[in-house]
Amino acid sequence: MARATAKIRLYVTAELSAGASVALDRDQARYLFSVMRLVVGDDVLLFNGADGEWRARIIAARKKDGVLEAVEQTKVHMSPPDLWLMFAPIKKARTDFIAEKATEMGARRVMPVFTRHTNSDRVNAERLAAHCVEAAEQCGLVAVPDVLAPQTLEKVLADWPGDRRLMFCDETAVGGDAAEALRRAGGDKWGILIGPEGGFSADEITRLRALPFATPVSLGPRILRADTAAVAALTIWQATLGDWA
Amino acid sequence: MARATAKIRLYVTAELSAGASVALDRDQARYLFSVMRLVVGDDVLLFNGADGEWRARIIAARKKDGVLEAVEQTKVHMSPPDLWLMFAPIKKARTDFIAEKATEMGARRVMPVFTRHTNSDRVNAERLAAHCVEAAEQCGLVAVPDVLAPQTLEKVLADWPGDRRLMFCDETAVGGDAAEALRRAGGDKWGILIGPEGGFSADEITRLRALPFATPVSLGPRILRADTAAVAALTIWQATLGDWA
Repeated sequence: MARATAKIRLYVTAELSAGASVALDRDQARYLFSVMRLVVGDDVLLFNGADGEWRARIIAARKKDGVLEAVEQTKVHMSPPDLWLMFAPIKKARTDFIAEKATEMGARRVMPVFTRHTNSDRVNAERLAAHCVEAAEQCGLVAVPDVLAPQTLEKVLADWPGDRRLMFCDETAVGGDAAEALRRAGGDKWGILIGPEGGFSADEITRLRALPFATPVSLGPRILRADTAAVAALTIWQATLGDWA
Repeated sequence: MARATAKIRLYVTAELSAGASVALDRDQARYLFSVMRLVVGDDVLLFNGADGEWRARIIAARKKDGVLEAVEQTKVHMSPPDLWLMFAPIKKARTDFIAEKATEMGARRVMPVFTRHTNSDRVNAERLAAHCVEAAEQCGLVAVPDVLAPQTLEKVLADWPGDRRLMFCDETAVGGDAAEALRRAGGDKWGILIGPEGGFSADEITRLRALPFATPVSLGPRILRADTAAVAALTIWQATLGDWA
């Protein structure tokens, strides 16, 4: 009988279906066999962001690789709403945190965006993606946001799809009911844009406010750090137009 | 003329009014004079959680102490709504983070609460309070939540004031409109209760649901880490019954 190890969850890229064979890479093999001390016959949970969650059995365990076989589906796949989170990168730890929180809060895509006052000039998208995967593994999620390479705000707005709305968190906006503004705008494809620590530039605010697809939203009377603003904005959106209702 | 150093903000315990003299303690003196290299005649911003924010001038600068004189009020005091945030302590970094976020989100009181499944058995309330002060200093806030010593959930509920409602974040609740539930319950004194990583025990959930002053609220279909749940719950409350409207 399999030991009760099924609390261990692993993100894999292989397709998952009954009897599917899943090869482990070196890091995964080390984690399962050296760190967690699992052996052939033990069970873990696997997800790939598309096929839900599967209980899988270890059928080969070696130092640098291993093979699992998917046994039964334990969660069906649930895609989060079609929501993008765009943010101006900040200090490393807080940027990692935004990726983690976007995953927990059910964003489908995470996009670092360079604005005029963005202090950080480089972002490691791979590192952000790893934080998204880790959050999904630990929180029992079946979906992982895709993380895009950083782009300038200019480019993001120039390429903006015609059928998507933009919730732009405007620190200069005063009051107003954020939920009501979202409900009025409606639609099911959105992006949330969080500004940098120094705020948007005056030019950027003018530009953003003039966009026909943009909804400026106030996040209250206190200045929020960017990571707090990200969670707050995702909450308002999910509770109003997303899958919390 | 004073140098443009007024971006430095310091929390002090002295009363603030025009001409008031403020003595600095050793840590503050070291920060202003050794780290930030300020000198007599420079200005900083002070707040004490009660009298708004004041521009103050350095009139004595020594290695281990110093004196400032309040010159003019730069922000009037704004108390956040009468909202308590109660949470089961988790890992140190995430607990610190909850204190920081409670401050930014405008909670008036922060209360660590031990539940059945709380893993952490000690909390340093002074350390939490220091994180609240730091968040207020950095985010330009004039109010700092008071941080209580940890108590058991049992004791908190036994002492619960008759005129205060409890928003309890119930991971076992499915769907429902959180904002609508809060609006229906109404009132302007509330406490938010966030459970531990392992969730509330079955007994605790039964007890909480039976309380006449409690409103169970769902925070969506994904399991949130406690720090994420804290920000999400504070957002829903502030946007619905608090000072965001």
